[in-house]
Amino acid sequence: MPAQHLNALSLILPNTRFITDKSDMAVFCIDQRARFQADAWAVLQPSTVSDVQALMRYCFHENIPVTPQGGNTGLCGGATPHARLGGKGFIVSLSRLNALRELNLADNAITVEAGMVLAQVQAIAQKAERFFPLSLASEGSCQIGGNIACNAGGLNVVRYGTMRDLVLGLETVLPSGELVSHLQPLHKNTTGYAWQQQITGSEGTLGIITAATLKLFAPPRSVLTAWAGIDNIQAALSLLAAVKNYFAERLSSFEIISNDALQLSAGYSRLNPPVSAVWHVLMEISDSLPCVSNHQEQLFEVLSDADCFNAVIAQSEQERQNLWKLRENISAAQRNLGASIKHDISLPIAAVADFIAECQPIIQQAYPHANIVVFGHLGDGSLHYNVFLPEVLGNDVYRFEEHINILVYECVLKHSGSIAAEHGIGQIKNHWLPRVRTAEEIAWMRSQKHFFDPNNIMNPGKLLPSETDV
Amino acid sequence: MPAQHLNALSLILPNTRFITDKSDMAVFCIDQRARFQADAWAVLQPSTVSDVQALMRYCFHENIPVTPQGGNTGLCGGATPHARLGGKGFIVSLSRLNALRELNLADNAITVEAGMVLAQVQAIAQKAERFFPLSLASEGSCQIGGNIACNAGGLNVVRYGTMRDLVLGLETVLPSGELVSHLQPLHKNTTGYAWQQQITGSEGTLGIITAATLKLFAPPRSVLTAWAGIDNIQAALSLLAAVKNYFAERLSSFEIISNDALQLSAGYSRLNPPVSAVWHVLMEISDSLPCVSNHQEQLFEVLSDADCFNAVIAQSEQERQNLWKLRENISAAQRNLGASIKHDISLPIAAVADFIAECQPIIQQAYPHANIVVFGHLGDGSLHYNVFLPEVLGNDVYRFEEHINILVYECVLKHSGSIAAEHGIGQIKNHWLPRVRTAEEIAWMRSQKHFFDPNNIMNPGKLLPSETDV
Repeated sequence: MPAQHLNALSLILPNTRFITDKSDMAVFCIDQRARFQADAWAVLQPSTVSDVQALMRYCFHENIPVTPQGGNTGLCGGATPHARLGGKGFIVSLSRLNALRELNLADNAITVEAGMVLAQVQAIAQKAERFFPLSLASEGSCQIGGNIACNAGGLNVVRYGTMRDLVLGLETVLPSGELVSHLQPLHKNTTGYAWQQQITGSEGTLGIITAATLKLFAPPRSVLTAWAGIDNIQAALSLLAAVKNYFAERLSSFEIISNDALQLSAGYSRLNPPVSAVWHVLMEISDSLPCVSNHQEQLFEVLSDADCFNAVIAQSEQERQNLWKLRENISAAQRNLGASIKHDISLPIAAVADFIAECQPIIQQAYPHANIVVFGHLGDGSLHYNVFLPEVLGNDVYRFEEHINILVYECVLKHSGSIAAEHGIGQIKNHWLPRVRTAEEIAWMRSQKHFFDPNNIMNPGKLLPSETDV
Repeated sequence: MPAQHLNALSLILPNTRFITDKSDMAVFCIDQRARFQADAWAVLQPSTVSDVQALMRYCFHENIPVTPQGGNTGLCGGATPHARLGGKGFIVSLSRLNALRELNLADNAITVEAGMVLAQVQAIAQKAERFFPLSLASEGSCQIGGNIACNAGGLNVVRYGTMRDLVLGLETVLPSGELVSHLQPLHKNTTGYAWQQQITGSEGTLGIITAATLKLFAPPRSVLTAWAGIDNIQAALSLLAAVKNYFAERLSSFEIISNDALQLSAGYSRLNPPVSAVWHVLMEISDSLPCVSNHQEQLFEVLSDADCFNAVIAQSEQERQNLWKLRENISAAQRNLGASIKHDISLPIAAVADFIAECQPIIQQAYPHANIVVFGHLGDGSLHYNVFLPEVLGNDVYRFEEHINILVYECVLKHSGSIAAEHGIGQIKNHWLPRVRTAEEIAWMRSQKHFFDPNNIMNPGKLLPSETDV
């Protein structure tokens, strides 16, 4: 059966690489956390939009499941075929559909194909004396299409918003193979229902994004990076309010780091912790104007007014990079503790302190030896809340995942937060949707899915709860 | 028939004002431009969400059309019942559903009911030392619900985005009467398909927005306003690029005004034009930091580097207000020229000069005596392009509307622009949708409409093309 389809497709996809050797396919068939592994008939890598269309037309007609894949850096198994497909169907990797379509400096817009790596978009922008602000740990591998499909967040959301806010236009191939393209860089355009907004964040379940027009910004010409040690979360929130009120959009990042997380990262990075404290804040103020000395005085004032005397301001680029390294290496450093149950949550900023204070004892009571590592983008209310069980070996920790998720998520929901801030739903949280979305919304989502993909071939098993999760 | 329904509703809507006297109803039954007038059985003004729900439940069950209405300031007839309803059904005015629900300064968020007037949201924000940036000519009357339903734009989009970018959460009553509410202020939340985005910009055709959580910003503490006279549009675009590159997000407005528009407005306002020129730019730079003197020097430099020597920078608040008055009074001043065919368009900024150069002769050739008044938000690529026919009396001008629309819109579309930047589609542009959206998108819109409103009772005849416009 697969051979027949592969033969047929090889005739109609002149610009597509077919990867059929199992060892070559392996890296596409497993997710970044090595939690999901699934076979497929082949990995197909089209390099033209017309091939993507022809491929989808064929699969639509033949009822063949397709799993779209970008950089395969997702953390919810969204880009790995669902196990229930039993190895049927294709992984469609967008990696070779990666051209620059247009750089429009007058409109501060760049149009790229979905397979372009995020770091490359950043580099093209920088070379043109612009700035593309999406910044994630995985930026060296993740691709624009995946970033849009998952509405990626990252470090600079407090200032520039999520990927949703950075997209001006999309080009999408529907499951039927039809192409819908609106790539013009328009800042105002309300012409009927919000198609682009539906595709964004739909995690590859409604179609395959093939290109996007993205916003560019003025480059930062002065940057001020500070690290403050604080006694508690409430102090961090007060500092955040003060900094936002004073610097407004110049605040581009505001990160919170627990002392446990910092010590882990400092050890891993072989750097000294900048200060001694229970909690840590890393913040960055950047400006399109070259006026760093003014901002330094102002920042000292803001820190003093907020009673933050246990703080350092980076005096050199090297110092700045070290501070960021301490933040960026937390994820890698964590792996030395073994596997953990990770949570990608967001909360109203006003609720963060209460959430952290309430959730810890709840976890500790059920799991007395748990280590909780907390860090994240306090500036936009999102956190990574990771629970390690030191006595549990390796992937055995996942036996406790459902229970720990329930403890953490119920506390998040009690505080009006979200259980999926920036990683998406994928195949690990779809059974939670009925808990966090109303029945009307779930029915609406199913009707959307049915409209776009009546035969459920487009990334089946992802995002939507299965029909048995009512 | 209506009496029977009114009696039944009076029993189940304890918090709703019933306006049934024809003279009292008149102001609700006509649009702002006096182009659409239609009767209804009554105007209902609920003051609670539960009444809105009960009302919709009843109308859904009885198949009674409902026209939601905010401040009735719309420019596309979207809030006036469609003539083909023949007077059947209700206008549901949200004016009395106007409470402040919550002001959350830690989250820089405000939750208000849909009937709150925009100017009041601005005032509440200002009192709390924050800033709500949506700013329109009609802000003294338009309501938040309508602003969201039409994805309003206005003066500050270049910096703060459209209404879509300012909404954190919505509460909506569906045609069936069900309530879907997500008012928590979360900046990152990707939990399934984008419901909130779907309702935003749907022009009252999918449900009734009853409340919204909106973003607040740091207040501007220094403002610099400048007026530059320029020779041509290209010069305006160069100046825009320079200002954006230097001041980045501090640029909060950048308006273009044709000399005809300025002269009209100057006469109406009894103010002198600030400079003599063919085209005019009004720009404003604002900062959360009090540093106006620095910016003034920098702005002089930017203007000089762009060869803009025919410019003034406001030296007092009075001077600043006069400059803005000249811009704000253009709409009112135009009315002295009689009725016009108005266009609410947007273009890639890179295409604006070509569009203006090409469209004028096209209009002039068909209508040799036409006056074209051009002004708008060049910073975000949107323009008002209004065609006056001086020899045509009063509303007779609308006999030429379809033809003039075709000439202008085809030129807009040739340059990859939009025919509906910020006013919406309403009942005047829905027949254009098949020209500007793909067949797949129109089919998708119909499926959406059918899901939310299977009996087509919610603002019938608006936004979607009628079934006969394929």
